[in-house]
Formats: sequence, C-alpha cells, structure tokens
Amino acid sequence: MSKTADYTVPGLGKDSGEEIAGLLQDRLHALNDLHLVLKHVHWNVVGPNFIAVHEMLDPQTTQVREFADEIAERIATLGTAPSGLSGELVSERSWQDYPLRKASVEDHLAELDKVYTGLLEDHRQVLSKVGNIDPITEDILIGQVKDLELFQWFIRSHLERASA
Amino acid sequence: MSKTADYTVPGLGKDSGEEIAGLLQDRLHALNDLHLVLKHVHWNVVGPNFIAVHEMLDPQTTQVREFADEIAERIATLGTAPSGLSGELVSERSWQDYPLRKASVEDHLAELDKVYTGLLEDHRQVLSKVGNIDPITEDILIGQVKDLELFQWFIRSHLERASA
Amino acid sequence: MSKTADYTVPGLGKDSGEEIAGLLQDRLHALNDLHLVLKHVHWNVVGPNFIAVHEMLDPQTTQVREFADEIAERIATLGTAPSGLSGELVSERSWQDYPLRKASVEDHLAELDKVYTGLLEDHRQVLSKVGNIDPITEDILIGQVKDLELFQWFIRSHLERASA
Amino acid sequence: MSKTADYTVPGLGKDSGEEIAGLLQDRLHALNDLHLVLKHVHWNVVGPNFIAVHEMLDPQTTQVREFADEIAERIATLGTAPSGLSGELVSERSWQDYPLRKASVEDHLAELDKVYTGLLEDHRQVLSKVGNIDPITEDILIGQVKDLELFQWFIRSHLERASA
Amino acid sequence: MSKTADYTVPGLGKDSGEEIAGLLQDRLHALNDLHLVLKHVHWNVVGPNFIAVHEMLDPQTTQVREFADEIAERIATLGTAPSGLSGELVSERSWQDYPLRKASVEDHLAELDKVYTGLLEDHRQVLSKVGNIDPITEDILIGQVKDLELFQWFIRSHLERASA
Amino acid sequence: MSKTADYTVPGLGKDSGEEIAGLLQDRLHALNDLHLVLKHVHWNVVGPNFIAVHEMLDPQTTQVREFADEIAERIATLGTAPSGLSGELVSERSWQDYPLRKASVEDHLAELDKVYTGLLEDHRQVLSKVGNIDPITEDILIGQVKDLELFQWFIRSHLERASA
Amino acid sequence: MSKTADYTVPGLGKDSGEEIAGLLQDRLHALNDLHLVLKHVHWNVVGPNFIAVHEMLDPQTTQVREFADEIAERIATLGTAPSGLSGELVSERSWQDYPLRKASVEDHLAELDKVYTGLLEDHRQVLSKVGNIDPITEDILIGQVKDLELFQWFIRSHLERASA
Amino acid sequence: MSKTADYTVPGLGKDSGEEIAGLLQDRLHALNDLHLVLKHVHWNVVGPNFIAVHEMLDPQTTQVREFADEIAERIATLGTAPSGLSGELVSERSWQDYPLRKASVEDHLAELDKVYTGLLEDHRQVLSKVGNIDPITEDILIGQVKDLELFQWFIRSHLERASA
Amino acid sequence: MSKTADYTVPGLGKDSGEEIAGLLQDRLHALNDLHLVLKHVHWNVVGPNFIAVHEMLDPQTTQVREFADEIAERIATLGTAPSGLSGELVSERSWQDYPLRKASVEDHLAELDKVYTGLLEDHRQVLSKVGNIDPITEDILIGQVKDLELFQWFIRSHLERASA
Amino acid sequence: MSKTADYTVPGLGKDSGEEIAGLLQDRLHALNDLHLVLKHVHWNVVGPNFIAVHEMLDPQTTQVREFADEIAERIATLGTAPSGLSGELVSERSWQDYPLRKASVEDHLAELDKVYTGLLEDHRQVLSKVGNIDPITEDILIGQVKDLELFQWFIRSHLERASA
Amino acid sequence: MSKTADYTVPGLGKDSGEEIAGLLQDRLHALNDLHLVLKHVHWNVVGPNFIAVHEMLDPQTTQVREFADEIAERIATLGTAPSGLSGELVSERSWQDYPLRKASVEDHLAELDKVYTGLLEDHRQVLSKVGNIDPITEDILIGQVKDLELFQWFIRSHLERASA
Amino acid sequence: MSKTADYTVPGLGKDSGEEIAGLLQDRLHALNDLHLVLKHVHWNVVGPNFIAVHEMLDPQTTQVREFADEIAERIATLGTAPSGLSGELVSERSWQDYPLRKASVEDHLAELDKVYTGLLEDHRQVLSKVGNIDPITEDILIGQVKDLELFQWFIRSHLERASA
Repeated sequence: MSKTADYTVPGLGKDSGEEIAGLLQDRLHALNDLHLVLKHVHWNVVGPNFIAVHEMLDPQTTQVREFADEIAERIATLGTAPSGLSGELVSERSWQDYPLRKASVEDHLAELDKVYTGLLEDHRQVLSKVGNIDPITEDILIGQVKDLELFQWFIRSHLERASA
Repeated sequence: MSKTADYTVPGLGKDSGEEIAGLLQDRLHALNDLHLVLKHVHWNVVGPNFIAVHEMLDPQTTQVREFADEIAERIATLGTAPSGLSGELVSERSWQDYPLRKASVEDHLAELDKVYTGLLEDHRQVLSKVGNIDPITEDILIGQVKDLELFQWFIRSHLERASA
Repeated sequence: MSKTADYTVPGLGKDSGEEIAGLLQDRLHALNDLHLVLKHVHWNVVGPNFIAVHEMLDPQTTQVREFADEIAERIATLGTAPSGLSGELVSERSWQDYPLRKASVEDHLAELDKVYTGLLEDHRQVLSKVGNIDPITEDILIGQVKDLELFQWFIRSHLERASA
Repeated sequence: MSKTADYTVPGLGKDSGEEIAGLLQDRLHALNDLHLVLKHVHWNVVGPNFIAVHEMLDPQTTQVREFADEIAERIATLGTAPSGLSGELVSERSWQDYPLRKASVEDHLAELDKVYTGLLEDHRQVLSKVGNIDPITEDILIGQVKDLELFQWFIRSHLERASA
Repeated sequence: MSKTADYTVPGLGKDSGEEIAGLLQDRLHALNDLHLVLKHVHWNVVGPNFIAVHEMLDPQTTQVREFADEIAERIATLGTAPSGLSGELVSERSWQDYPLRKASVEDHLAELDKVYTGLLEDHRQVLSKVGNIDPITEDILIGQVKDLELFQWFIRSHLERASA
Repeated sequence: MSKTADYTVPGLGKDSGEEIAGLLQDRLHALNDLHLVLKHVHWNVVGPNFIAVHEMLDPQTTQVREFADEIAERIATLGTAPSGLSGELVSERSWQDYPLRKASVEDHLAELDKVYTGLLEDHRQVLSKVGNIDPITEDILIGQVKDLELFQWFIRSHLERASA
Repeated sequence: MSKTADYTVPGLGKDSGEEIAGLLQDRLHALNDLHLVLKHVHWNVVGPNFIAVHEMLDPQTTQVREFADEIAERIATLGTAPSGLSGELVSERSWQDYPLRKASVEDHLAELDKVYTGLLEDHRQVLSKVGNIDPITEDILIGQVKDLELFQWFIRSHLERASA
Repeated sequence: MSKTADYTVPGLGKDSGEEIAGLLQDRLHALNDLHLVLKHVHWNVVGPNFIAVHEMLDPQTTQVREFADEIAERIATLGTAPSGLSGELVSERSWQDYPLRKASVEDHLAELDKVYTGLLEDHRQVLSKVGNIDPITEDILIGQVKDLELFQWFIRSHLERASA
Repeated sequence: MSKTADYTVPGLGKDSGEEIAGLLQDRLHALNDLHLVLKHVHWNVVGPNFIAVHEMLDPQTTQVREFADEIAERIATLGTAPSGLSGELVSERSWQDYPLRKASVEDHLAELDKVYTGLLEDHRQVLSKVGNIDPITEDILIGQVKDLELFQWFIRSHLERASA
Repeated sequence: MSKTADYTVPGLGKDSGEEIAGLLQDRLHALNDLHLVLKHVHWNVVGPNFIAVHEMLDPQTTQVREFADEIAERIATLGTAPSGLSGELVSERSWQDYPLRKASVEDHLAELDKVYTGLLEDHRQVLSKVGNIDPITEDILIGQVKDLELFQWFIRSHLERASA
Repeated sequence: MSKTADYTVPGLGKDSGEEIAGLLQDRLHALNDLHLVLKHVHWNVVGPNFIAVHEMLDPQTTQVREFADEIAERIATLGTAPSGLSGELVSERSWQDYPLRKASVEDHLAELDKVYTGLLEDHRQVLSKVGNIDPITEDILIGQVKDLELFQWFIRSHLERASA
Repeated sequence: MSKTADYTVPGLGKDSGEEIAGLLQDRLHALNDLHLVLKHVHWNVVGPNFIAVHEMLDPQTTQVREFADEIAERIATLGTAPSGLSGELVSERSWQDYPLRKASVEDHLAELDKVYTGLLEDHRQVLSKVGNIDPITEDILIGQVKDLELFQWFIRSHLERASA
C-alpha cells in the first residue's frame, strides 16, 4: 500500500504537497495525543473545583478531535495517506507520556499548561514553514492556533494569582 | 500519586472494586484504540463506495468514544485512577497496530471485522468475570457489546455474498 | 438463498446463535402483528374518550415498531435472516386476528389488554430461555418487556374501577 | 359491530362514500404490506453497497406508514371501518409474499422494483375511478403516487446501466 | 378605495378573477367565524372529558386560522381586496351565531358537528364551481376540505356509539 | 345554560368574580376584534414598504390572539362563561368596523394607531377598576398593556417625522 | 449554622427581609407538598379518563416544582436559609396528608380541588401581607397564584355539570 | 449517452412519458433562470427599502430552487434525462437575459413582475396540456403555480398605489 | 380504597408482584426524599465554589425525580398503589432529616456523600432480593444504581485530596 | 432634533410620560454601564475558580442587555428619545468607573456586590416613584429588580462564609 | 445604470476595488455554473452507488451556492454591481458546458473531478493576485478553496484504486 | 494590580504580545462604542422604513458584541488585562459621541456610514501593523473587517440612488 496518490491539490506541485503532508503528520500525532490527555485529565482531577474543571475539558476535547480530523483530511486531500494509529504515534512522537494520574486540579492544570505550550510552539513553527507554499494549509493552522491559545488562556487563568 | 482511593462503591468490597477496575483498564485501552482506528480508516478508504463507508464510520467513532468515557468513569467510580494515555496503551496492549494505510473499502472492512472480533471476545470474557461480583459493571458491558455487535454486523453485511 | 450466515457473534457458538434466532423470529412476528393491531385500534375506536385513546396509541405503535426493528437486527447479527413478511407471519403465528372492528374505547381496551398479556407471557418465556446462553439478547428482551408492561398498565388503568 | 356509520362526508352520497371506502381498503392492505416488505429488505440486503441501501429504505418505510395511516383515516372519515389486520390482509390480497430472504442489493432492488410497479398500477386505477366522485380522495392518491413514483425512481436508478 | 386591482393572475381573465374572489370572500367569513367558534368552545366545555377535548380544539383553531389566511391571500392575489372584518362577517353571513355557552363536551361536539357540516357543504359547492375556471383555487379548497373533514371525523368519533 | 358557575377563585367573593368577569368580557371582544383587524390590514396594505409592514403585523396578531385566550380563560377561572362569538362581539361593542380596505401603508398605520389608542384607553380603565379587587387580573392587564403599547410605538414610529 | 445572613436585598430593612422570608417558608412547604401530591395522583388515578388526566398533571407538577424553587431562592435572596426537608415540612405544616390512594379520576380531582383551594387561600393571604413591604415578593406570588388558579380551573372543569 | 430510459412510470405509456418530459424541460430552464435572476436582484437593488426587499427575495430563491429540483426529478422519474446546464438553458430559452444591473427597488420589482408573468403564463399552458395525460405532473405544476402567484403578489403589492 | 389490583404483570405470580412492590415502596420514599434534599442543598450552599456546585445539583435532582417516577409506575404496573405522600414518607422512613441548613460547599458535600451511601446500600440490597423473582425490576434498579454511583463519584471527587 | 414626541401612551398625561422617561434615562445609563462592567470582569478574573465565575457572568450580561433594551424602548414608547451613548453615560452618571482590572475572583465579586447594591437601591427608588403614576413602568422595574437581586445573591453566595 | 458606485471599502483605493471586483466576477460565473452542474449530476447519475453519490452532491451544491452569494456580495461591497445572469455567464466564460447527461457514477465523478480542477486552478490564481491588495478578499478565497479542495478529495477517493 | 501577566502566547516574544495588546485595546473601545451606538439608533430611528431598519440593526449589534468579546479575550490571551469600562473608553477614544438622537432613517444611516468608515480605517491600519508579528491576531481582524464591511454595504445600499 503506497502512502501517496498520483495527485495533489490543483495548482500546487506534487513535491510541495508531500512536504506539507509530512509536516502535518506530526501535528496529527500531537492533536491525537492531546485529546487522549484531555480525557485522561477529565477522569483524574480531584479537589474542591472538580466539577467546573471536569466540565471545562470536554468542549476542549471535542474541538481538538475536530482539529485532528481537519488535519488528517488535509493530508489526504494533499495526496498522502495520514496515520491515526496509536503505535505509530508513540514511536514517532518527540515527547513523553503525560506524567500524572489522579491529582489535584492545580497540579493537572500546571501540567496541561506545559502540554499546550509544547504543542503550540510546534504548530507555530509548521505554520511559518507552510505559509510560503500553501496559504490554505496556513489558514487551517492559524485557525487551530487561535482556539488552542484561547484554551491555554483558560488554563493559565486558573493558575495565575493577581496581586491586589 | 496513588492509583486507588480509600473507597469503592457502597455495598461492594474494596478488593472487588480494584479487581473489576483492573479488568476494565484493558477494555479502556481497547476502546481508545478502536476509536483511533475507526478515524484512521475513515481517512484512508478509497474506491467506488467511498462516501457511504466514510460516513458510516463516524457514528461508530462517536459511540466508541462514549463507551471509553463510560468505562473510564466506572473505573474512577470504583475508586481506581484510569489511564487514557497513548504510551501506556501501546505498552500494555496485547494486540498490534492496525495493518493498513490507504486501501480499498473491501480490504479495510475485512480488517475492521477482525478488530471487532478481537475486542468483542475480550469484552465477553470480562463480562462473564464481573457478572458474579458487580451487576452494575456487567450491565455497562452488556450495553456496549450490544451496540458493538451491531456495528460489526454492518461491516459484515458489506462483506457477505448471498448465493441467489 | 440460505437463511444463515457462516458466522455468529464473537464468543457464541454458531448453534447457540441459530437457536436464539429461531426463538426471536416468533417474537418478531408478534411485534409486527402488534403494531398493525395498535394502528387498527387507533382507527376504529369510538366514544366519549375517543381523542385521548386515539392519541395514546401512537407512541405505543412507534415504540413497538422500534422493538420489531431491534429484534430483527439482532436475528441478523446472530447470523440468521429474519422474516418480516405478512404471509409468513400469518401462517406461522399461534394466535388469531384481532376480533374487533369499530367498537367503543372500553371494548377495544379490553381486547388490547388480552393481546398484551399473550405477547408478554411469550416474551417472558423466551427471556428465561436465552438468559443462560446470551446475556445480550436477554437484555434486549428485558428492555422490551419493561416498556410493554408499562403500556399494558396504561390500558388496564382505563379498565379498572376503584371502589371508594 | 357494523362496518359503516350512518354518515359520510358532507356533500357526498352515502353510497359513494361506501364505494370509495371499498376501493381504498385494498390500497390500505397494499401499503401495509409494502412497509413490512421495506423493513424486511432493510434487514436482509448484503453486499458492497449495504449501508447506503439499508439507510435509503428507512425514510421510504416511514413515508409509506404515513400513507397507510392517511388512507385508513380517509376510510373512517367516509363512514366505513378500515381493517389494518394482517390476517385480513393476507386473505384478501391479490399478490404473493415477497420472494427473497437474504440476498444481494441488486436482487432485492430488482424485486422491490416489481413490487412498486404492482402497487402503483393499482393506485393509478383507483385514482381514475374515484376522480369523478370525490376530488378529495383523488388528491390524496395523487399525492401518494407522486412520492411512490419518486421512490421507485431511486430504486431504478441503481439498476440502470448507462451506455457511455 | 377600490376593491379590485387592475390585474389578476397571469393566464386568467380579469372577470374570472373577480368571480372567484367573490366566491372565496364568503369562505373567508366562514373560516374566520369557525376559528372564533372553536376558541369559544375551547373555553366553555365542561365535564369528565374536559382536558382532552379542550386540547383537541387548539390545533384545529391554528389550522383554520391558516386556512383563512390562505383564502384571503388568494383573494388578494386574484386582484381583489379581501375583508376580514367582524362587522362585515356578521352582516354578510347566512348562518346564526353558535348557540351554546357553557355546556357539556357532548352538547358542544354535537353542535360543532353541525357547524362543520354547514361549512363543508359550502366549501364543496364553491370547489365544484371554481374547478372549471382556476385549478389553483380548486387545489387550495381541496386541501382545506381534506383537513376539515378529518377534523369533523374526530368530533363524530366522540359522538358515535358502536353496538358491540 | 347558565353563564356562571357556583364558584370563583379562592379568597375572592363570588360577586367580585362576576363583576370582574363582566369588565373582562368587553376586553375579550376588543382583543378578538383587534386580531381580525390586524390580519385584515396584513392582507390589504400596498405600497413601497409592503413586505416589512406585512410581516410586522403577524407577530402582533399572534400575541393578541394569546391575550384573547388569556382573558377568556381568566373569565372562566373566575366562574363565568366567556363569549368569543362574532355576533355577540358586533352587537355588544361600542366601536365601528375598521374603515379601510386596500390602502397605502401610511393610511393603514394611521388607522391602526387609532384602534390601538381606543383599546388601550379602555384597558387602562378596566385596569384601574380591578386593581383594588383582584391583583391577579390587574397583573394580566398590566402585562397586556405593556406589549400593546410597544406595538403601538412600532406603528407610531412609522408615522413620525423627525425634524433634523 | 445560623439561618440568616447579615444582609437582605438593597433598600429593604433586615427585619422586613426576615419577616417576609418567614411567611414564604410556609409557602415553600405547601408547594413542595403539592408537587408530591400531584405525582401521587398521577400514579393512582384509574378509570375511563385515565390517560388524559394522567398526562394533564405532569405539566402542573413541573410548574409547581419551579414555583418551589422560585420561593426558596427568594427566601435565600432575602438573607434567610430556606428549608426544603420533608421532616420539617410534615412537622410544620397545618394540613393533613392527601387522603386517597388508588381511586377514580372523579374522586381524585374532587380532592385535588380542595388541595388547591387551601393552598390558594394561603397564598392570597401572604400576598396581601407582603404587598406593603416588598413589591418584588408580591409580584412573585401574583405570578404563582395566576397559574395555580388556572390549574384549578382545569380540575374544576372536569367536575362541573352544565345544565343544558 | 441516450436521454431516455426503457421505462416510464407504471400505468403511463412510454410516449406519454417522453412528451411530458419534453414539456417539463422548458419549465426546468425557466426555473433555473429565475433563481439566478432572484439572486442577481438580491445583490443589485438599492434605495430606502433595500434591506426589506433584499431579504424578501431569499425565501423565494430557496423555493424556486426546490421547484427546479422537483421538476428535474419528475423528468427523470418519467424516464428522460433532464438538463440543468447553463449553456443549454441559454441556447434553448425563448426569453432574454434580465435587463437591469444596479437599480432602485422600484425598477427591479417592476422587471421581476414581468419575469413572473412570463413564467406563469408558460406554466399554466403546460399545466393545461399535461392535465389530460398525467394527473401527477399536473398536481406538481399546480403546487408551483400556487406559490409563484403568491410571490408575484408580494412584488405587485409594492408597486400598487391605492387611491384613498 | 384497596392498595392492590386483581392483577400483576403477565407471567409473574400475584404474591411475587406484591412482595416486590413492597420492597420498592421504601425505595420510592428514599428517592422522593433525595430529590427534596438535593434541592435543599442547591439553595443552602455557600462559599467560593458556590455556582459550580449549585449548578451540578440540578441535573441530579432531575434524574432522581425521574427515578422516583419510574419506581412508582413500576409499583403500579405490578398491581399495587404507590404512595408518594410526604407524611407517609416521614413516618415510614428509617433515616433522619438532612442535618444542615446554610453551610459551606465542603460540609454539604460531605453530608450528601453519606446520604448517597445510605441510599445505595439499600438499593443494592433490594436489587439482590428481586433478582431471582423479576428481572425487569432488577434491571430498573441496576440502571438507577449505575447513575447514582456516578453522581456520588462527582461528590467524592470534590472531597478527595490527592497527595502529589 | 427634539427629544420628545407629541404623544405619550394612551391614558397617561404627556407631562407624566416625560417625567417617567426622565427617571428611566438614568436607569438606562446604569444598565448599560453594568453590562460593560460584567464583560470587563468576565475577561479579568483569575484564580482557582476562574472558569465557573467566567461562565456565570455571561447569562447575567445577556439579561442586563435585554433590560437596557426594555427600558430604552419604554422611554421611546412614552414619547421621549432615549440616549444609549457612552459619552452621555459617563458625563451624566453619579458613580465612578469600576476600580479593578486583573484581580482574583474574590476581589472582583466583592466589587460587583457593591455595584449591584448601588444599582438596586436606585432601581427601588425609581420604582416607588413611578408606582403611583404608571403601573406598566412599575411592573417593568419590578421584573428587573427581581432578577438583579437573584444575580446579586449568586455573587453574595460566593462571598459568604457559613459557621458550621 | 452604472456598474460601479462612487465608493469602495474604507482604506482601499477605488481603482483597487474595481480591479478586484473584476477578478471576482469571473469567479462568480464559475461558482454559479458549478452549482448548476452539481444539480445536473445529482439528477443524472445511475448505477449501483446511485443513492450515496446522489446524496453526497447536495451539501456540495448548498455550499457552492453560499460561496456564489459570498463572492457576489463582496463585489457589491467593493462598489461594483455583480452579474448573476445566465446569458452573461455563458457568453463570458472560458469553459464549455458539462459534457454528460445520464451516465454512470464513475463517468460523472471523473468529469466532476476535471470541473473542480479547472475551477480551483483559477481560484488559486485570483487568490495570489488579490493577496497583495486586499487581505479580506484573499481570506474569502482561501476559505472557499479549502472547502472545494475537500469536496474534490471526496470525488477523487471514489476514483482511486489502492493497490493492496 | 498589574495589567500584564508574566507570559504571552507560546512562540511570541513578551514585548510583541504587549505591543499587539496595546493596539487591540483601542479596537476594543471602538467596538464597545459601536454596539452602544447601534442600539441607540435602533431606539431612535423614525419614518416610513422604521421596522425594517430597526430590525436590521439587531444582528449587527449581536455580532459587534461578539467581536468585542473576541478582541478582549485575545488581549488577555496575549498576557495583558483588557479594559471594557465606559469611563476609560470615553477618556481614551479619539472620536466624539454619536451626534443624533431621534431622527429619520436616512439621517441615521448617513451617520452610521461615517461611524463604520472611521472604525474600518482604524481596523485596517492595526491589521497591517500586526500582520508581520502575529498571524493569529491578523486573522481575527481580517474576519471582523470582512463582516463589518458587509454591514456597511447594507447601510450604503439604503443611501445609494441608482440612475435608471
């Protein structure tokens, strides 16, 4: 089974299509891992703010799953077969498993903050690379970064302590 | 961070709670892997029946994600911290990564049929083990098997050839 | 055209699958007949309580049609081809056509009460037979009996006369 | 229990009411049989186009059930008691049981095409008979034929082979 | 203020347009009176079946109001100004005010039955007159008679006594 | 058929109930007439602002019909049988039929402005009378005046000419 | 645990707040008891009008539960802790348990009529007391009495016998 | 690629099917052109009534698109392949392109009035031709004329000037 | 007024029906008390997590009310008249009134945790008793325990303190 | 541009209309300022309860914006032109800008509590002034105070500390 | 009737506005032609995959119609009058009419693939031209290309044959 | 209370974050002022087109409020505390209060046209400044300009006079 088709989107070179698809595959792994982590935290937070944080994470999970779908279908549209498999994810990723199991809201949000920082730095890098080649893919990534930065702001707002 | 609380559900022994939770953790890995695989196939099927099968897999994905959530929250309710992490999934599972990338509808459905058979055999085994200890967990598993067998029937009905 | 596939659900013997499917075929006939009867009564009741009873029967019809669908798809999932045909229904059933045409609410409800009693006794018998073999089919039948007994209670509540 | 009331709709002779009701009773049997057959096919088709055809038949079933209801309530409105019973259906109908059980999409659609042709020819005949007597009943039948011909077109479009 | 425009619908003579509009004005008065009567009964029925009949009349009212709107806009479309005023209604109608105030369900339904009979006989007469001139207006009236006859059947079904 | 029951609402004298019901009957006639007039204008306005005004009147009609229903059910709740009949409306009312048929938006809105003024002055008078006897009826009338004054403001805003 | 806060709503004296809250506590008990009774009747009525009355009581239950919530949150807003407990309800109420178990529609509606009369007389009394102190609480009670009197009218309309 | 199938609807001769389909093809072109024109006007009207007319045209566009779909699927159901192509539309139509670009509401509505008159005269002609052959097609055309005449009335009501 | 009918559900002995109904009556009291307590806490919690916990309790209340309804209608279906009255609840229950009025989120959740433990232990006991007699009632109780254990997990998750 | 029309609502003196409108203008400024402040806090709260309070403020904002609209349209209905402009708001108001920017939930809620107290005291004063002149305006203000006091209770419930 | 207004969007030169509008007019023709073609194919596909492809094309049609609307209103916003007329479309376009009438799914999808390639290449070209002048128009085109490329991927996935 | 956090979005320098936030604060004031002005006009327009323009402004208000929210949360996400206060708005803005109170539709739309021109010129300027630093903020502004230019086109279309 070949991974690439004999086409890419009209008006783009086939090499460019494969190059972008390659960069996006790593983003797909990152988003697939993120929605698994968000559910994992959803199940394992405890403490006085349990229900509010438990519920806050579900729309984030839903949105991240849609982003994974959007990236994967973009890869396919560009003519390459995407991988959404857990084994490939784990063997190809450059980061570790999320470190906490049952823990306080505060500890989980502090860890999630780091996860978002890592994913967003990588998204920004790919964004700057694809911008010169394919404005459509660039626009997809801009839309994702926009929402993911907002989600991180939700998390950071819990951690911040204002000095009155 | 301990994995178990100092409680389980009222009327059940704490040892029983941990035993069932242990059996369910493997089911959680299987369901998490299945919804990743269903999306992977959703992106990688090609051929004359593309759109019908592409669309058939989305409600299956949605349902399997809800089953994963249901199992994970049952584990937590029983007093144990569930793991929804990809790294643990891959290192603890007893099956391999899904073998196909871009392939025909027929080939993908034949592989998915095997995936469902594997998951369902394991679900039935856990079902028979927990039935004597906790009818609530048993009922959750019965409800999941019911729908998953129906999903497999959808897939098998594509593969079957009736002799007129 | 053979009536059975070369599979049944994972973890169940093929003989068991066929045995249960055979028991369910009779239940399918009974449910198909019941939703025809409920509509027949819906059209033929008259008297001062017409509109309330006329409307009460429609959600019952809808639910019974969904139960027929559920049973038929269970038969197919078990590897056997279900029959939903009127000719087979009439030749294979063990009961007579519903006896009334246009009649009062009271007379129709008294007859419907008997119809429900007959169907429910048979459902309970099949339920007890399949319980040892396949907990999934058992659970389907329990769910149906639960609602059908409630529907019968609606009907009985019209017929009962409380002594003050 | 008499089958006819001492009234029919205002402005129509009682004899005319009974005559039309008699013609409609056969149409009611045909529609009741059709929705049973559509469900039967829904459960028994197999092959590479399974899911698309399986799903196409459900809105047809729903619509045909509404047509049966519309005809039956028209019979009642005309002053005659309609029969929706399976036993009467089978003994009074002029056609045979549907001949297939589990079969390919192609075989089932070829049979359904014949079923629709039979029903539609009869509907057109009744339509031409009632047109001179009661424009209301005529309009009901026109509306049904319109949709049923469209449903048949869906089926025929699967069977047709265009020569390029 | 003239009552007629210098146009009627394309393809119809201006005289024909005015003739039909004249026939429809009487139907508009009848429908406006009917929805007032239906509300009047809605407020004034009493007895053991109160709530069921009270609620049955509201969708009839809604539908009759839509029919009045449909007729009035048809008159305007035909180039004539419709009258929806109570004073003109009362001075131009050929029937009396509804005779009951607070009364039993049975008495009210017996009276409503007569109201429907009167209105429907007149609708049928106009229907037969306009049929040769304007099939569009004919179709509007057929659609209204269809539903109004069904509403009358609801009412008659309460009054009928089936002999067992 | 008596017009009054042997009860009124708890905590109110039966005489008071009848007195208020008497005042409300005139309000019921006014509201019934108003919704007929609003539809009449809806059908008969012409000119460059046709569609906006045609559409503005429909939610007013709907609301006025609900107010008529509210007043009539209040009369009944107070123990008196309300009249919603056109004949009684016309013979008992103190105002004339609406004077326009087909006319410009401006002319119709100028007439409707007068209709609202008349109805609202009467509503305010009844409101001040019932306030000392029954705060519930008072509250119903306040709620109606609130919305009706807003509707009139819509109409007046079309007629007003601001000097820049 | 003190029952009162160190605040009441702005612009009202703290004594007034406590006085009104005290009056409302009894209303809260009455409404809590009423929604329990309405469900109790919902389950225990029998006879030819069963389904219509069974269904009529559910929206009443829903509304009464919302009224209980509204009163309780008003008490809390006024600075006092409300009690929604069954034990306090029973020990503090001035009325007896509802007297019927399974009984005819007629008997139950006759009893419910008395329950409504009792509750409404008390609501009117509290209404007149709070009117001079707090127009907000007065308005809440007026809104509740308005709907509860309408519910009672539904019940009374079943019991009334019109003399033709 | 042949344009006709070897079938038409049951009960109609194949020649009749082709004849009607031929008449309908011209109606399809007219409806396709009309919905393009309605959008064109939607974009190009200016003046003080802009927003109301801009918005009025959208539901007309939607409805006309559904009518085009209905006619095209009727042609196909009759066994002929419909054409929805712009090139064929322009070469086969008997009318000119719509004459205005940016213009006042009044000018556009005056032109649209002519467009509707042209289309409706042709629809009426086809309607009278098919009535004797196929009542189903006749009924489709009646339903379209009904709504299109109403749409034209909306437009004419803007243009008419009532003399007070 | 007798408490039991002369029937129970088909296929179950009348003694068994009464025995189960007796066990369920105590569960009905427990559920009725629980939804009153949940609302009581909803009104009386204070502290920094107020809004999140205040809102978390409302869907629990709604669900528990539906469970009470389900149990009561099961009792009636089994042929016994259920009691939903507060007086009987208080005199027959084996537990005390909820001990807190206005209190912190933490204190209320700690008390609610105990309430859930008590109710769930009793539900499990009844569940084990009815399992051998009536699988339908058993299934109802399993479904309720499943959700109630999840609700308790929500509450416990607020109270737990994870050691990092 | 004059600020007042030559009318006010029917049944009210023109002077009264202007007087009330004058009082309401200040309330309009207060409500416009409040919804700006609520959004400002929505963006600037931080701390462990961030998400719950962030979300709690949005329905309050929505409601306060509807109240501003209601007051402004009441002013216009009374014949005076309302001002919704920020410059006039700031120059005419008697209070200062909200004092906090980014701050803890606790600090923000303590400030919002003061804002609500100020606005509610003023609303109550205007309420008592208009009560004697115009019951409609009084009713509008009562409805607003009712909800705003409830919103303040939400805020106060976060700040209160119950002594166990 | 001039085609351009004396304005364009703020911050853009009037010449730039006209230049972009000119480029967009060709895109408007292309999109108008595409939605006509998609419907044409919707009516003319035949073969075993009929229903799935027939239904897949409808959401594409809807989306393309919205894109045409978006482009046309952008042209108008830029100050130029757009043309949505079929005659201008055909005389100004650089491509031919779609070549197929009734044909197999495979043949139609192969042709549609070409249509999409043509339209997308032109969209990309205009996109690159407007990017330096007006980022708003650029963003509109990026959003359209994104979805249209995805639609083309759906079509291509039917045509692709994976080598296993 | 400091106005800036010790973070900005990942991959952006903290100085850049503050610079962009500073530019956006002025845009927040402009949008907050615009939605206040749109409501002000909504209340103060008069004349023959009142209702259409009155209603056209409400979706614009809603959208502008969402844009203000989007900008403010972007400022916060970038690490700076936004100000939504009226006092700061008025003291920091570079434009005057909207000049009209009650006025004709034409005068108000002419003024609103100027308001939109001012705001859009500033938005375009900020857009060009942030484009090189942060593509996410750029994209947010592009999206807002797109809709705001469309809103202005609605307004301009009322003012334009086409020469026929």
